[in-house]
Amino acid sequence: MTEAPLLPRNEDGIETAIGVLRQRFGERLHTGASVREQHGHTTTWIENQLPDAVVFPQSTDEVADVVRICAAHKVPVIAFGTGTSLEGHVNAPGGGISVDLSQMGKVLAVHAQDLDCVVQPGVTRADLNTHLRDQGLFFPIDPGANASLGGMAATRASGTNAVRYGTMKDNVLALEAVMADGRVIRTAQRARKSSAGYDLTRLLIGSEGTLGIITEITLRLQGIPEAISSARCSFPSVDAACRAVMMTIQYGVPVARIELLDEQSVRAANAYSKLSLPETPLLLLEFHGSEASVLEQAETFRTIADEFGGTGFAATTSTEERNQLWQARHDMYWATLQLRPGARGISTDVCVPISRLAECVTAAQDKAAELGLMAPIVGHVGDGNFHSLVLVDMDSETETANARQFVSWLNDLAISMDGTCTGEHGIGQGKRPYLVKELGAATDYMAAIKQALDPDNILNPGKILPG
Amino acid sequence: MTEAPLLPRNEDGIETAIGVLRQRFGERLHTGASVREQHGHTTTWIENQLPDAVVFPQSTDEVADVVRICAAHKVPVIAFGTGTSLEGHVNAPGGGISVDLSQMGKVLAVHAQDLDCVVQPGVTRADLNTHLRDQGLFFPIDPGANASLGGMAATRASGTNAVRYGTMKDNVLALEAVMADGRVIRTAQRARKSSAGYDLTRLLIGSEGTLGIITEITLRLQGIPEAISSARCSFPSVDAACRAVMMTIQYGVPVARIELLDEQSVRAANAYSKLSLPETPLLLLEFHGSEASVLEQAETFRTIADEFGGTGFAATTSTEERNQLWQARHDMYWATLQLRPGARGISTDVCVPISRLAECVTAAQDKAAELGLMAPIVGHVGDGNFHSLVLVDMDSETETANARQFVSWLNDLAISMDGTCTGEHGIGQGKRPYLVKELGAATDYMAAIKQALDPDNILNPGKILPG
Repeated sequence: MTEAPLLPRNEDGIETAIGVLRQRFGERLHTGASVREQHGHTTTWIENQLPDAVVFPQSTDEVADVVRICAAHKVPVIAFGTGTSLEGHVNAPGGGISVDLSQMGKVLAVHAQDLDCVVQPGVTRADLNTHLRDQGLFFPIDPGANASLGGMAATRASGTNAVRYGTMKDNVLALEAVMADGRVIRTAQRARKSSAGYDLTRLLIGSEGTLGIITEITLRLQGIPEAISSARCSFPSVDAACRAVMMTIQYGVPVARIELLDEQSVRAANAYSKLSLPETPLLLLEFHGSEASVLEQAETFRTIADEFGGTGFAATTSTEERNQLWQARHDMYWATLQLRPGARGISTDVCVPISRLAECVTAAQDKAAELGLMAPIVGHVGDGNFHSLVLVDMDSETETANARQFVSWLNDLAISMDGTCTGEHGIGQGKRPYLVKELGAATDYMAAIKQALDPDNILNPGKILPG
Repeated sequence: MTEAPLLPRNEDGIETAIGVLRQRFGERLHTGASVREQHGHTTTWIENQLPDAVVFPQSTDEVADVVRICAAHKVPVIAFGTGTSLEGHVNAPGGGISVDLSQMGKVLAVHAQDLDCVVQPGVTRADLNTHLRDQGLFFPIDPGANASLGGMAATRASGTNAVRYGTMKDNVLALEAVMADGRVIRTAQRARKSSAGYDLTRLLIGSEGTLGIITEITLRLQGIPEAISSARCSFPSVDAACRAVMMTIQYGVPVARIELLDEQSVRAANAYSKLSLPETPLLLLEFHGSEASVLEQAETFRTIADEFGGTGFAATTSTEERNQLWQARHDMYWATLQLRPGARGISTDVCVPISRLAECVTAAQDKAAELGLMAPIVGHVGDGNFHSLVLVDMDSETETANARQFVSWLNDLAISMDGTCTGEHGIGQGKRPYLVKELGAATDYMAAIKQALDPDNILNPGKILPG
């Protein structure tokens, strides 16, 4: 485990707030150790820091009540979606109250004519898409995990489809949020665009629960494409695969997904998902459009792939084959862990300008080898975003030290390439030192905004900003 | 003219600051009345409020010097691009220093492989596209006026191409800005996406110079499409045209532009641009893609138009014909003014969910008729955004009162339809009362952010926020 810094605890305040919350929420307030543990960080090597209690509100008014009670006693309030974040976002370094939004799980409205919908924060991505299917609509952002849409908004999530459809910042029209003083605001109306005042929608997206708690989300939707096809193609090297990606993007092919698996990841996928892919770097693609357009896109890609030594190109419009391929992609986390049973997987996330992608991925592979680490790479490479999943024997001090060095080195490398220390995982606790390296003085103004909107620092303290 | 509220003047501070600035900038500081007038508001019926001096910096450091000098003496600083804003954005209600960024007009870098570029704020949209043409790239945002990219970022501009390519918020990767204390920040690196901290990029976009002065912009670029075709189609009513738009969007046709001209606007275009279009509501479209794709898009649209009584459908891939059509669209402001020589044109701007568009446009036409106003409508209707250009005889008190009533009524109507009082023109001075009607308590948090980042309220005071 990696220790996460602690914050001073306001013991009296916490005790009082829990008393008041118990009166207000009765059995929807939990203080048992196992519930509290589940609401701390559980996914990576960052240690679990338990909240003192977990409350399950069922409405915006109830969230506002929680915040007002905690504000009155200066007690931390930590919004909780599904707990799939990777950088300690939901930890409680100073204790406090976890606000589990899973009981706010209603799709409140679908405006099919406007291609938008309004959901509560606990609705998950998969739930929403099931709900929308009959109307020929879908919500494109897919971070892999079946995360809640509130959590996805709060962390500016993206994933495989972002190359075509953008990230959460591009797909949220408006938010309702409870602010640190317990007041409820709406950040925008339902118009497709607006130039009315400061963009509080985008300010809250990616703020990781530190500026407000999102209680309602108005999302842009897409029509389910007339045709979807997928393709795969193997490459002689990561460099060749990345160059093919670069040209595909430059050529303006509107790929919906373009994912890289390096050779180790392909090996993991073969073993776990019972596939027989050639164990060299692989690109997986998906094309959305009309019947004619998806054929044309696949053909353009195949021509590009040929130039870079691509082999085994195979495209399909079969839903079954496509699902098999993407299921394998989504299972990569578990597949990779199986490469080294007993090891812990430490996922790190960087994003660089696409012209630097080949160089960055290759350097990461070389560095891992140099440090004796097994660190397979998968990436949303159309955006220049990739993850390295370092497989660490946590009992080996040398190995954990080397893994730490690798993560730090990779983040620094991405920043030095005019890239970012996090394409999509967010800052949480784990990436705070890199945020300052990346954005310098800008973080002072972030701190000023935090101070202005949450002067007592009760909303998810100890996240994003250093110190 | 419509009076704009004044702010108290800091006479001593202004005098001192001008003295210091004169020493620092010599002949690049202007205090003559005509230059000052050109740097107040000049485009609509909002009265011109002159700055006390205009300075022409040539570098970020020089902008920082201006801000530091003004900050030391608590003097307003108003960033100026090309002065084409419509709601009093560049007015100086408390006097102060206008910072004209036209001498910061360099394209600093084009990263063709990454489809991005870095520009100074004074580069205009047209300059940039000329610069990019040889590399097969273009920047898609087109607000009509040949605005500066700094101004476009500061006002969250959009225009005809936004239905396909989004607005400035979607096409800026990073900003450099001078903050109210004179420090320079970068809001992001050049990666395509990031979840690193608060989205200061989006916070500055649309902040109209009230939170910082933008000194460098990293923009996403697009490859020039393989094929571009345009089309026009006449409709029996505005309602029919809007319904065709709605279905085109729902059907997922990736139109690059879809513009409505109502019957009065078509009449104006015919007279001004020497066209002979049928004088009924008209849609103008543009399709971008491969040769096959633009044909397919046009054909899909034609089928939809048929359903709604569209006539005279004509598509063309001829550059000359296309340019003629879009030149006519861009000249609409001047063409409309010619409908009533001597009248002043008051452009107002709303945006509603597309399901309400037909109703909103029709109601606007009816209301104008009821008030005896000539108010032709043009719109970026794929986004639900339209403008009404009220032609007002400013010598008639009744007419100006009616125009005022119309503008107010239309903004209220759009807000009541879950729309916005401004799709793209911004708040400036003119729309401040509507911002509060639209977003209520959210504006308190905007004010808190303003107070935190600019405690002495020196950056473009009297804009966006009420009071």
